[in-house]
Amino acid sequence: MKKIILTGAAGRLGSYLREPLSKLADVLVSTDLAENVGNLYEGESYVRADLTNFDEIKALLKGADMVVHFGAYGDEASFETILGPNIIGAYNIWEAAAQNGVRRVVYASSIHAVGMHSKMDFIGTDAPHRPDTFYGLAKCFSEDLASLYWDKRGVESVCMRILSCAQVTNARALGTWLSYDDLIHLVEQCISTPTTKFTVVYGVSNNDRVPVDNAKASYLGYRPKDNAEQFAKEILAETPPLDHSDPEHMCVGGPFASVELGNSGLATMNIINDTKKS
Amino acid sequence: MKKIILTGAAGRLGSYLREPLSKLADVLVSTDLAENVGNLYEGESYVRADLTNFDEIKALLKGADMVVHFGAYGDEASFETILGPNIIGAYNIWEAAAQNGVRRVVYASSIHAVGMHSKMDFIGTDAPHRPDTFYGLAKCFSEDLASLYWDKRGVESVCMRILSCAQVTNARALGTWLSYDDLIHLVEQCISTPTTKFTVVYGVSNNDRVPVDNAKASYLGYRPKDNAEQFAKEILAETPPLDHSDPEHMCVGGPFASVELGNSGLATMNIINDTKKS
Amino acid sequence: MKKIILTGAAGRLGSYLREPLSKLADVLVSTDLAENVGNLYEGESYVRADLTNFDEIKALLKGADMVVHFGAYGDEASFETILGPNIIGAYNIWEAAAQNGVRRVVYASSIHAVGMHSKMDFIGTDAPHRPDTFYGLAKCFSEDLASLYWDKRGVESVCMRILSCAQVTNARALGTWLSYDDLIHLVEQCISTPTTKFTVVYGVSNNDRVPVDNAKASYLGYRPKDNAEQFAKEILAETPPLDHSDPEHMCVGGPFASVELGNSGLATMNIINDTKKS
Amino acid sequence: MKKIILTGAAGRLGSYLREPLSKLADVLVSTDLAENVGNLYEGESYVRADLTNFDEIKALLKGADMVVHFGAYGDEASFETILGPNIIGAYNIWEAAAQNGVRRVVYASSIHAVGMHSKMDFIGTDAPHRPDTFYGLAKCFSEDLASLYWDKRGVESVCMRILSCAQVTNARALGTWLSYDDLIHLVEQCISTPTTKFTVVYGVSNNDRVPVDNAKASYLGYRPKDNAEQFAKEILAETPPLDHSDPEHMCVGGPFASVELGNSGLATMNIINDTKKS
Amino acid sequence: MKKIILTGAAGRLGSYLREPLSKLADVLVSTDLAENVGNLYEGESYVRADLTNFDEIKALLKGADMVVHFGAYGDEASFETILGPNIIGAYNIWEAAAQNGVRRVVYASSIHAVGMHSKMDFIGTDAPHRPDTFYGLAKCFSEDLASLYWDKRGVESVCMRILSCAQVTNARALGTWLSYDDLIHLVEQCISTPTTKFTVVYGVSNNDRVPVDNAKASYLGYRPKDNAEQFAKEILAETPPLDHSDPEHMCVGGPFASVELGNSGLATMNIINDTKKS
Amino acid sequence: MKKIILTGAAGRLGSYLREPLSKLADVLVSTDLAENVGNLYEGESYVRADLTNFDEIKALLKGADMVVHFGAYGDEASFETILGPNIIGAYNIWEAAAQNGVRRVVYASSIHAVGMHSKMDFIGTDAPHRPDTFYGLAKCFSEDLASLYWDKRGVESVCMRILSCAQVTNARALGTWLSYDDLIHLVEQCISTPTTKFTVVYGVSNNDRVPVDNAKASYLGYRPKDNAEQFAKEILAETPPLDHSDPEHMCVGGPFASVELGNSGLATMNIINDTKKS
Repeated sequence: MKKIILTGAAGRLGSYLREPLSKLADVLVSTDLAENVGNLYEGESYVRADLTNFDEIKALLKGADMVVHFGAYGDEASFETILGPNIIGAYNIWEAAAQNGVRRVVYASSIHAVGMHSKMDFIGTDAPHRPDTFYGLAKCFSEDLASLYWDKRGVESVCMRILSCAQVTNARALGTWLSYDDLIHLVEQCISTPTTKFTVVYGVSNNDRVPVDNAKASYLGYRPKDNAEQFAKEILAETPPLDHSDPEHMCVGGPFASVELGNSGLATMNIINDTKKS
Repeated sequence: MKKIILTGAAGRLGSYLREPLSKLADVLVSTDLAENVGNLYEGESYVRADLTNFDEIKALLKGADMVVHFGAYGDEASFETILGPNIIGAYNIWEAAAQNGVRRVVYASSIHAVGMHSKMDFIGTDAPHRPDTFYGLAKCFSEDLASLYWDKRGVESVCMRILSCAQVTNARALGTWLSYDDLIHLVEQCISTPTTKFTVVYGVSNNDRVPVDNAKASYLGYRPKDNAEQFAKEILAETPPLDHSDPEHMCVGGPFASVELGNSGLATMNIINDTKKS
Repeated sequence: MKKIILTGAAGRLGSYLREPLSKLADVLVSTDLAENVGNLYEGESYVRADLTNFDEIKALLKGADMVVHFGAYGDEASFETILGPNIIGAYNIWEAAAQNGVRRVVYASSIHAVGMHSKMDFIGTDAPHRPDTFYGLAKCFSEDLASLYWDKRGVESVCMRILSCAQVTNARALGTWLSYDDLIHLVEQCISTPTTKFTVVYGVSNNDRVPVDNAKASYLGYRPKDNAEQFAKEILAETPPLDHSDPEHMCVGGPFASVELGNSGLATMNIINDTKKS
Repeated sequence: MKKIILTGAAGRLGSYLREPLSKLADVLVSTDLAENVGNLYEGESYVRADLTNFDEIKALLKGADMVVHFGAYGDEASFETILGPNIIGAYNIWEAAAQNGVRRVVYASSIHAVGMHSKMDFIGTDAPHRPDTFYGLAKCFSEDLASLYWDKRGVESVCMRILSCAQVTNARALGTWLSYDDLIHLVEQCISTPTTKFTVVYGVSNNDRVPVDNAKASYLGYRPKDNAEQFAKEILAETPPLDHSDPEHMCVGGPFASVELGNSGLATMNIINDTKKS
Repeated sequence: MKKIILTGAAGRLGSYLREPLSKLADVLVSTDLAENVGNLYEGESYVRADLTNFDEIKALLKGADMVVHFGAYGDEASFETILGPNIIGAYNIWEAAAQNGVRRVVYASSIHAVGMHSKMDFIGTDAPHRPDTFYGLAKCFSEDLASLYWDKRGVESVCMRILSCAQVTNARALGTWLSYDDLIHLVEQCISTPTTKFTVVYGVSNNDRVPVDNAKASYLGYRPKDNAEQFAKEILAETPPLDHSDPEHMCVGGPFASVELGNSGLATMNIINDTKKS
Repeated sequence: MKKIILTGAAGRLGSYLREPLSKLADVLVSTDLAENVGNLYEGESYVRADLTNFDEIKALLKGADMVVHFGAYGDEASFETILGPNIIGAYNIWEAAAQNGVRRVVYASSIHAVGMHSKMDFIGTDAPHRPDTFYGLAKCFSEDLASLYWDKRGVESVCMRILSCAQVTNARALGTWLSYDDLIHLVEQCISTPTTKFTVVYGVSNNDRVPVDNAKASYLGYRPKDNAEQFAKEILAETPPLDHSDPEHMCVGGPFASVELGNSGLATMNIINDTKKS
């Protein structure tokens, strides 16, 4: 692997990926809207670029083997806010990848693409889309775009539907937690698997209470090691009886399943904030 | 039913729907980008509106019970061309519907949302999206949007995935034909069924060679009457052996499955042209 | 066929079956709680018997080839009311059948055994039970009993889950109607099919809007002819927008899906009253 | 958790649960037909009650958060014997739970509710009922009752279909064993999971030869630790070639799949004896 | 279509196909082991050839567009008897087709490739093989061979699993009958469909009691018209209660499901005798 | 277990099995085409026999309890080469087993029976056959033969579809590796499980990247321990980007999915060489 591009490199999850990715390729080009991302790792360079600017993205991807695409507005927001970085930005990434002959896009999709499904249905990777927010809707769009670019332009994609990659602080996260170590393991598998075509995989740790089924993505060899059950006793002791009629507690999307469309009110909860726009 | 809005009323399919819809409601408001649509039917009025202009759409839907949404750029085109009327336009329709308390959107989706599936798989209405074009990608987006507005805002939708509503001139159409009479029957069922939540249904006639499965949408009571087999002998006599490796002949999307992304070259074939922008 | 027993012969549906059953066997023994059922058909005799009395039932089934079992309390009611004729009565029928070497029980089960399933799921005959009332719960019990007597005692059963066998007076019935002619056709198939083991089949006419799937029971050769769509225009014109959150409109069980447990309040609606206890 | 009721507390499995349950709640009320259950654990009290007496059960459940329902006649027996504690008793528990606002019933269902399915089908939790005995039939009834009380009265239930919770003494048990530790773990998960609605889960250890599939109940976080394979070598060495035509060896219900209906002859085998009536 | 080869042309079914096939192609070459097949139709020629002789078959298929392959030993027989014409003969046909660039083989497969499946399972075209005889085993082999030659050599095949193409004289045939008209219709669809890849389809009329599911082969446009139900009343009147434990009555393979392996004893029943070797 | 027959005992895999099998039975009879297999284990004897000679095979199996059948031509070859040992040989084994009252055949089937399925479909044990070679076609034939002999003659079989039992030297083998220890464990389970009827199971280690699903064979208790992931880093470092259009990289059959029919060219690769004919 000669060259990897990492978008959203200044975001919470992107920051965790810079070091391991710098070791997987000769050259890692990190990018985000920020002016810089501080000290660089060996082999890493940083280029500021705006996902909504096709020319910048096309130039950025020149000569790349793969793109690890974590750049996006990282929370529920108005459709206008999502439209730019998450929808048009996704188009720019895949179109630039196709024009540059990039082999694969490893994409930070999200459980919120299917967030309104019940956690009692143990959905697989081929469940129909059922987004819970505009944020999730843009993930659906990007997955379909990835499918299209595979079928029509030969660009491979792995869409990692991350469940919740943050501290385990509530009952839902006992099932949905993705540890940072498992995130890194997953991204590495997505990169190293020789062929992936268009693949969907859930990004979740080896939790006892995992509510989704990764069986069909078995060939990726993703076998997470962490288990949120270590936090169960303490968290459940503090969890009051939950309201069955509240989608937050019944749907895999969790709080996003209940949130008002276009307005998460979750900014301070820090649940998903891959790439905050400044 | 007091008031129905028909978008894309100047388009080919929209034109066919004006008369039957004018009979189903006290008031039919037809709309399109054209200055007018010629003589109006009893109970019909015409309002020019641009799908990409939210204020115009919001005003248009005021007091409506249902929207029959056929307005869109009606052919494969560049992403830039599709983005406005087909993606932003879809958002405007559903958001305006929600703000106006409209009960249901009856939507002209398309087989091209799942066009890369093999015709030998007899896909049902819950097959995963697999678009064949940017045109199809926008249909995927609109279906997911419709799902979201049902789950979050209580707006019902029926997404009619029309297969091919045009003259039967080739072997594929023997399976995919939707006659105008069956189109009208389908739209009427989508309107008259008391509750639909979020429903997907294939728009296809009762063809012997139908390649998709409508079983799950059975409660709509859609039972098409026409059958393209009447044209089979003549068409097959003129059909040379087809190339198995060409997606056009193997996928439900037909020619769109083979077309270059962003450039259908089909403009003159008139296969799909719901609403041509002037 | 030498001898058929018909239970619930004084009930609404039982009354319709007496004449056709009298023609299918040398001897038809009709039974119910009533003192008599009026004039008898050729080959028919009437015996008063109480389903809750095993000795009476055992005597009744002596020498019979098949039992057509429509006797039951025919409405939602308190568990105490249902327990006797519908639960203990069912046990008495199958146990007496086994002791008498009766070949098959053709049983009037009901959609209410699975009434809480969504009409949008197009459930088949192997969907898990999901009763909507104590009435439906007793149907579940009888089906499981029938399964048990097939596996353990070699008594065949066909459980006909009747949807709604009554006048079409509301939107739901457009999908759920079973005409009297189709009921008779169905019962005749259940009797004449050479082997049935334990079979479940939906009792519903050939309605355009049928919400259940009989595919797995195909070998019975049940092909209904009537279609409630003839009543659609008139009924839908009088149907106001329905409440999506009311199970009555979303579940296959219809009004029973919404009714208070143990108290249908439907007595005067006459929807189901196979066998009224006096 | 303030108050838990344990029925069948004097039975074999109930006895194992008293101590761990006494630690999960402020108050544990144990109940059975016996006069007493010997020494009580801290927080435990004992109340004699008869499942067939609704008034006793209603009084017993007053103020309870959850009921752990293991009380039943614990072996195959005549229908008359099963009818009281296992069928009417079940109704009394759920109805009393609903009237008292009890949140959840954790129920000792049994593999015998689906015992006639082949062990080669690897059935999941949504396989149709297929009881092997009157004992199993009553489990089917109770599961359907639990489904009904969730849908209609908002009482949650977890139906634990226990496979075989006893010493491993034969080849079947290599697959069906549920160790006491895993039983306790399972009951704890059923209690601590914040929402369960109506859930079915198999109660079986982490045996290499497990013949059923718990995937859909994944959100309970039940991950058994014991494995009967430790006993395999010794037991298989003593197992003669088994008769393929004997349901005992081919069906998940094991000996109950072969037993004469209503008469297990297994009393001395001690396979299932949750609650022996004196 | 310029040239079609029909094997088994002297057999019962082959004889029926000669005339319609002669009209579908410029040239029809009929072949069998017999010296001649009597008067020839316009465009038809006859060539004696032995399926077990590769050189003869290779020469026969020269210049052909399609092969309609009905030649085989047409009854259950010893493995040695089946091995030549039905196994080695099948290899010769497909290998010769590949060497000659023949586009498609339309093959008379049989329900006996899956004959041990229960008629209550309503198996589709992708059910696993489950042969009932050596005759059926050779059909399995030929289907797998056809699959292989499609994947590796680009020869298309349609495997028509004929249920029973003979007079309706027993209860099973009410479900399994394939009328001669429907056979001809099916063969015509298999020939005229522009692309088929490797396809399996059941050859059965539009019988009310049809026990198999052709949904996945929908794109062939096979819609049979005849219905054996016209014979039902008479046949069922003469049908005694059938033995549930006899596979003949429970399996889709009918009498072959019960027959002794290698020895049908059915020669005089004339159920299947495509091509009798002299 | 008194007597086991091992065919293919001189082959690569057969050689590994001789010692463990010699410990499982009082008598192990090893057989192959070779004159001898060197030193014998305690309880082992060696008999030269030709699979294509029924009389030799019938004599060989006399008094045996089980046959472990690994004898076959062990590579892709012309149909003529495969026909003898792999097709006729298989018939001889099962027919001789039936005539001798042998209880079970444990058979070395192969992934090549389904080799053209995509590794992204995670196929189960009931996926339709889809052979990749004549070698695989003969495995399909043998599996169907095994099914037939179970249904008709009561001979049990376990068909172990071995993925790749050889050194891990390429990316595919990271998913398909079956270690020798796991092979032995699998064979032991196939022998010791009391009843198996007709069973299919995949022979593959506990690899992170395993591309097939063994869930339905769970009752065998096969739980492999080895994991090829230990070789992943080194192998993937040397693996160039793979060609998506090459079946070798996309299908579970690996190199056999791409090989020319009848001519593997793999002889020197030593991938599969159970039994080389001298």
